[in-house]
Amino acid sequence: MSDYTAPIADMRFALEEIAGIGEIARLPHCEQASPDLVDAVLEEAAKLAAGVLAPLNHIGDQQGSRLENGVVRTPEGFKEAYRQYVEGGWNALPFDPEHGGQGLPMVLATAVLEMWNAANMGFALCPLLNVGAVEALTAHGTDEQKRLYLPKLISGEWTGTMNLTEPQAGSDVGALRTRAVPDGAHYRITGQKIFITYGEHDMAENIVHLVLARLPDAPPGTRGISLFLVPKFVVNGDGSVGARNDVRCVSLEHKLGIHASPTCVLAFGDNGGAVGYLVGEENRGMECMFTMMNNARLNVGLQGVAIAERAYQHARDFARQRVQGRPVTAKAAGTYPIIHHPDVRRMLLLMRAQSEAMRALAYYTAGAIDRARHHPDAERRAQQQRRVDLLIPVVKAWCTDLGVEIASIGVQIHGGMGFIEETGAAQHLRDARIAPIYEGTNGIQANDLVGRKLLRDRGAAATELLADMRTIDRRLEAAPGEDIAGIRPALALAIDALGEATSWMVETGAADLPHALAGSASYLKLMGIVTGGALLAQGALAAEARVKTGTGDVAFNKAKLMTARFFAEHVLATAPGLVPAITGGATTMSFDLERL
Amino acid sequence: MSDYTAPIADMRFALEEIAGIGEIARLPHCEQASPDLVDAVLEEAAKLAAGVLAPLNHIGDQQGSRLENGVVRTPEGFKEAYRQYVEGGWNALPFDPEHGGQGLPMVLATAVLEMWNAANMGFALCPLLNVGAVEALTAHGTDEQKRLYLPKLISGEWTGTMNLTEPQAGSDVGALRTRAVPDGAHYRITGQKIFITYGEHDMAENIVHLVLARLPDAPPGTRGISLFLVPKFVVNGDGSVGARNDVRCVSLEHKLGIHASPTCVLAFGDNGGAVGYLVGEENRGMECMFTMMNNARLNVGLQGVAIAERAYQHARDFARQRVQGRPVTAKAAGTYPIIHHPDVRRMLLLMRAQSEAMRALAYYTAGAIDRARHHPDAERRAQQQRRVDLLIPVVKAWCTDLGVEIASIGVQIHGGMGFIEETGAAQHLRDARIAPIYEGTNGIQANDLVGRKLLRDRGAAATELLADMRTIDRRLEAAPGEDIAGIRPALALAIDALGEATSWMVETGAADLPHALAGSASYLKLMGIVTGGALLAQGALAAEARVKTGTGDVAFNKAKLMTARFFAEHVLATAPGLVPAITGGATTMSFDLERL
Repeated sequence: MSDYTAPIADMRFALEEIAGIGEIARLPHCEQASPDLVDAVLEEAAKLAAGVLAPLNHIGDQQGSRLENGVVRTPEGFKEAYRQYVEGGWNALPFDPEHGGQGLPMVLATAVLEMWNAANMGFALCPLLNVGAVEALTAHGTDEQKRLYLPKLISGEWTGTMNLTEPQAGSDVGALRTRAVPDGAHYRITGQKIFITYGEHDMAENIVHLVLARLPDAPPGTRGISLFLVPKFVVNGDGSVGARNDVRCVSLEHKLGIHASPTCVLAFGDNGGAVGYLVGEENRGMECMFTMMNNARLNVGLQGVAIAERAYQHARDFARQRVQGRPVTAKAAGTYPIIHHPDVRRMLLLMRAQSEAMRALAYYTAGAIDRARHHPDAERRAQQQRRVDLLIPVVKAWCTDLGVEIASIGVQIHGGMGFIEETGAAQHLRDARIAPIYEGTNGIQANDLVGRKLLRDRGAAATELLADMRTIDRRLEAAPGEDIAGIRPALALAIDALGEATSWMVETGAADLPHALAGSASYLKLMGIVTGGALLAQGALAAEARVKTGTGDVAFNKAKLMTARFFAEHVLATAPGLVPAITGGATTMSFDLERL
Repeated sequence: MSDYTAPIADMRFALEEIAGIGEIARLPHCEQASPDLVDAVLEEAAKLAAGVLAPLNHIGDQQGSRLENGVVRTPEGFKEAYRQYVEGGWNALPFDPEHGGQGLPMVLATAVLEMWNAANMGFALCPLLNVGAVEALTAHGTDEQKRLYLPKLISGEWTGTMNLTEPQAGSDVGALRTRAVPDGAHYRITGQKIFITYGEHDMAENIVHLVLARLPDAPPGTRGISLFLVPKFVVNGDGSVGARNDVRCVSLEHKLGIHASPTCVLAFGDNGGAVGYLVGEENRGMECMFTMMNNARLNVGLQGVAIAERAYQHARDFARQRVQGRPVTAKAAGTYPIIHHPDVRRMLLLMRAQSEAMRALAYYTAGAIDRARHHPDAERRAQQQRRVDLLIPVVKAWCTDLGVEIASIGVQIHGGMGFIEETGAAQHLRDARIAPIYEGTNGIQANDLVGRKLLRDRGAAATELLADMRTIDRRLEAAPGEDIAGIRPALALAIDALGEATSWMVETGAADLPHALAGSASYLKLMGIVTGGALLAQGALAAEARVKTGTGDVAFNKAKLMTARFFAEHVLATAPGLVPAITGGATTMSFDLERL
């Protein structure tokens, strides 16, 4: 078991100095996000996270959700926690005020979502999936659909799901077979979906399934897929909940982690077809799904940040309490907490520095979403959208890969106790392990980054990003202090490496796509490291300036500088060494498959 | 669930070309290890591993060992499998023929042990712990103790355990409190031990606990610890099993992995004191324990190799079967197994190349143990012992860290199915996670490498290793072929980086030990990568020569070349980037602990 305290000071620093929330709060539709409101939101959210959600994390893992006679029972306390979450208005935070949302900027919602996921990832998955449903309906729903479903989904009284996967259709969504047949004003849906997160549960009055299915005579593949809204209970014209629809949960998966989150097999139409409503146009379901996916990918990346923070706090608290032997740093005889051992410090700093880099990247990207939506200048909006499109796969894959690594370091710091389930450190590792897989595997993110984001504009968006990073590098060059000087050489070499790899990718991808894709995962990792490192350097410059002007807590600001320096020495320095893996695809592609 | 096939061809290649089993078979006491015998042993062991142990791996995970009324029941099939293992004479393989052992070289025993661990790590832990008991008694037992216990421990009819840890005494063994009071010709042992692997089970007639405890008035710390033999059933003078001793299992831990292996809390002396016999001299228990530990560390490192191989086979077989979408490499429309996707290939090769590098390092070190024991030339024995001492912590820590990483890649290749426990991929990750922790955490291995192995001889053994690696580099320079040419630049730079880091460590460690230890884990990783890469390069040279002379299977030998090249591009190339983390200990040590 472990406690969780939302790292509000670190979050605020990232919001202000990395994402630029001050500038965002001056954009149209974002004016609410005054410093006072931001503080109030963070502090209230932190209370719910620490006081209600975090204590249920271990219980959720131990009990899991259970299927009993077609009904899914969430773990003890979850229903009540969800009630508090809804009543506090938390679900409505980022959504359009037109349908009852609070309309706060994405960047602030991102910080709050980090808290839910750090406190209790198994719980947070329910609202996380809901976001996708709201976004799909907001973008593609009819006015009637919006009127009937959005207010309840936004308040959280009802929850939403995403139904893509079937046994034969995982990453290859186009292979799905669920059918939709017109039946008067609606459709009848028949088929089986798997891996449906919170596909059935007892925390909300109704569940709104967004389901990909094929119309009769639809073209094969992804061009023949349409999106349908299939409520658990059919909704009457006055918005009241009506008859039970023909969809049921037939089993739950027995998973490595996120036990609290019910992963359902859903059967649609066993009794004649579930009532469904078309969302958007026929055969354009994939586009609607992509609307949901882009932000969902950011949010899954954020789960990597969140679980890393949780694991870090858990390991740090243990290292402060666990007395074991005399470290070489000890001046006097006796025994000391293990936090004094040099290698334990190294592990903690590796957790912390990478968590902060991930947070910087996630919040920065969320801020870019706000600018892309609300900036008055169209060119700036377009430029910020390019930045978002480029970085979304990096946030998703880099942060979730690191989430697993960092949770694993957390286990290690606990020593033998880390392997005992009672301790709770292992849960973080088990929970973290799903994030590189769902919402598009990290391999798919890498292919997306190279195949779509890099090659389609021939590296234009990446070149803009590189130019921004070089600006940070020049500012480092001009800034004083030993710690800044300790960051700069690694960052400069890392930016060069990313520049080199980007040029290579753009050239090679055009001529020999498989060769380029064989290096795409390493390229994504490089971009994550360099962008994360550049953003930490930007933070270090701000911290240095704060120290100089006597703004804020000196020790806090110095720790920011040292964290950036540690990241430079331990992570940024490894960036140039990734280039041969990126450009070495020939070895990968020519290896004799029979000999694997 | 997954199958396992021992990679006999790869094992034989590593035995011959990396460890030099041909040369070892010409040493005194090793003559039995003729090529024919080696083949026969590997093939028979492979049958037991694949046919008996591997099918029990998933069952062992699902059922776990259970404590019922003080009796531990191992999972279904384990007792019978152990009987077959003992009857086949497998337990006796590496031990001294004087007490019934087969006296085969360590290097061959290592290959066989890899199979047991790959097939079923939860099972293999029982014989693994037994090895330590045999070695401690062989080195430090009285003639009477050897006569009474060794034959049964060597045959495997009885099993051995290592009892070090207590709740307050983990890595700090010196803090242990278990007491031993003289009582006539023996002692009475009282205290509680935790984390005792196979401390109680139903597979053998008797269990021989080797227990660290304190005599009355023993000096504090590690200098006041003695080693005792405490049998589960007291053994009569004629070797027959007598009365139940005063030791019992009071609980089993609920662990992340290795569920089949009972991790016991043992209570000694609840009814007046367990009968124990002193092994070695009073207060010299730590030395006896180190006898057990050095090889145990090699064997735990080998678990990293084994689980990596198992995870690799599992993922590869899945990638060959799972049809999903059309990869960019496909020449025709339709769907294909995912092994054709460039990023899946990359992941499989990353698993494979690192597994082979780990195997090379482990077998090489085992071969050095044989030479250190049996080489007729005293100087050569001493030099090989230096090599063993240097590399043992590297084998333990590098291979077990990679074991976790590789098992995690295995989960990833399975996509969503990887997160479902039924698939079995997640078990490998859960099982692998213990190996970086037990038998001395990997942080302790890093401290051992730098503090003991490097600083005590001021880098002499490391310098010898570097010289051997430079010889390989020069041979690469002189060798033909594009693949060899693709390996060399990365290896040369990596050796330089290790040389630079070694000089820095030796200098800094003498002046500022904490600073050096803060970089010790990164230094160990660097040594693992460079040594593993150099040994793969040595294998590549041999493979190139085999291709040229038409020896063996051309495709097999070419795959060896390509694997070494892939490792050079993806892993060796990252070596120089580790140096700033090694030398950057000042950041780690000056970070404000209050701000962590």
